[in-house]
Amino acid sequence: METDISPKELRQLIRSRKWTAPTSGAARGCVQANLVMLPRDEAFNFLLFCVRNPKPCPILDVLEPGEVEPAIAPGADLRSDLPRYRVFEDGQFKEESKDVTDIFNEDMVSFLLGCSFSFENAMQAAGLPIRNIEEGKNVSMYVTGRPCKPAGPFAGPLVVTMRPMTPEQAVRAVQVTTRFHLTHGAPVHIGTPEEIGIKDLAHPEFGDPVTIRAGEIPVFWACGVTSQLAVTAPPLPRVITHAPGYMFVSDLKDEDLTIL
Amino acid sequence: METDISPKELRQLIRSRKWTAPTSGAARGCVQANLVMLPRDEAFNFLLFCVRNPKPCPILDVLEPGEVEPAIAPGADLRSDLPRYRVFEDGQFKEESKDVTDIFNEDMVSFLLGCSFSFENAMQAAGLPIRNIEEGKNVSMYVTGRPCKPAGPFAGPLVVTMRPMTPEQAVRAVQVTTRFHLTHGAPVHIGTPEEIGIKDLAHPEFGDPVTIRAGEIPVFWACGVTSQLAVTAPPLPRVITHAPGYMFVSDLKDEDLTIL
Repeated sequence: METDISPKELRQLIRSRKWTAPTSGAARGCVQANLVMLPRDEAFNFLLFCVRNPKPCPILDVLEPGEVEPAIAPGADLRSDLPRYRVFEDGQFKEESKDVTDIFNEDMVSFLLGCSFSFENAMQAAGLPIRNIEEGKNVSMYVTGRPCKPAGPFAGPLVVTMRPMTPEQAVRAVQVTTRFHLTHGAPVHIGTPEEIGIKDLAHPEFGDPVTIRAGEIPVFWACGVTSQLAVTAPPLPRVITHAPGYMFVSDLKDEDLTIL
Repeated sequence: METDISPKELRQLIRSRKWTAPTSGAARGCVQANLVMLPRDEAFNFLLFCVRNPKPCPILDVLEPGEVEPAIAPGADLRSDLPRYRVFEDGQFKEESKDVTDIFNEDMVSFLLGCSFSFENAMQAAGLPIRNIEEGKNVSMYVTGRPCKPAGPFAGPLVVTMRPMTPEQAVRAVQVTTRFHLTHGAPVHIGTPEEIGIKDLAHPEFGDPVTIRAGEIPVFWACGVTSQLAVTAPPLPRVITHAPGYMFVSDLKDEDLTIL
């Protein structure tokens, strides 16, 4: 995978359909983001949902209605600079798309939310295992029994990612990820999956199961999929999101998001 | 000053008009908050202003339109549980009030924003000087030349507080206040007031000047007054805020707001 490319170059390749792959590992060190576009009538409530649930829904940028050039990526166009989108109508999944220029309109507001790629780079730099990367899989994601704080029509369960490691590594992982409070921050839970309503680690609701070795415990972080479940809970006329793994790549550096 | 009182007891005293003083030092260890109430039509833009300017405007709670009982203080009523309010109409200051039950309406949204009392307790615990407290004065506040990021009709300059200390103390103050990212967090500037558009430290725009001793440098933190300038910039029909120093006292503990 090409990693030396700048985020601006990557967005140009995506816009001209020369890059159609997932963005994991591309423009490494630059912040990648979840995208949510929804009608302005519900923008206040969705912003409130994110503010009330900052660990799963950390806000990187919110654009004015109709605008598509984010402050964190001058020159970009959110309608064409992601490799793949998902379109929902009346709360139902309708289709995937490679460009949403034709269906985004002046009455929609775009949100960019932090994603875990930023802290994964830092974890790897600290020598911590990321099992799904080692095994060439997608990260394991689980729907928990913990409800988010609702806002207006937006509600839903907290979704988490899980990475297995030793207890000593878990302590280090808490330290490393705490710095990244705008990309999910510290874990929300350690060990005992049943405590947060997860019945079977071998059967994640999204992504792939990974090997948990003897002596390892599961460590859980809040996951951006939470926002996708919440935004599609009410039957809004139209909602557009990125397709999982096909993120928006900004000009921000991972270190720009750290608290210390 | 009575400091052993619980936040719930304090709010009851305020509601029954038995407490009419500023809240500084009351219910010590509990989080105090800036209050902003404004019409729901502009709630999205003001929430966006806060999200875009998190250091001066850290969001502790945002209530549904018409609601007055915050999640961070069950049983409280934001219309009567602050000792003194300020009322603005059409962008102009109209009057101070001890109760806004009659003028708050179902069409208004209440915001609670973090205030620096939380990190001042932590600074004192770390043995750092807070000169204005030592001298029995209000903290020095300055309007800087740095504009906030605007949102809709809300715009204005960053306002900062200043506390003088030695360079060694300034390093420790950065460490101590970094933990409190929801109550303004780390300083926004150290030394060189002219760099941020402050012409004369002896003449703050709000509060009192304090003594700066030989060998001390000014250390600047983002200030909640920023939100008051921004919310009264457009001529909204009605805006209600706390009166400076007469804050809302929540049930949260200062430590609840720390990042680590």
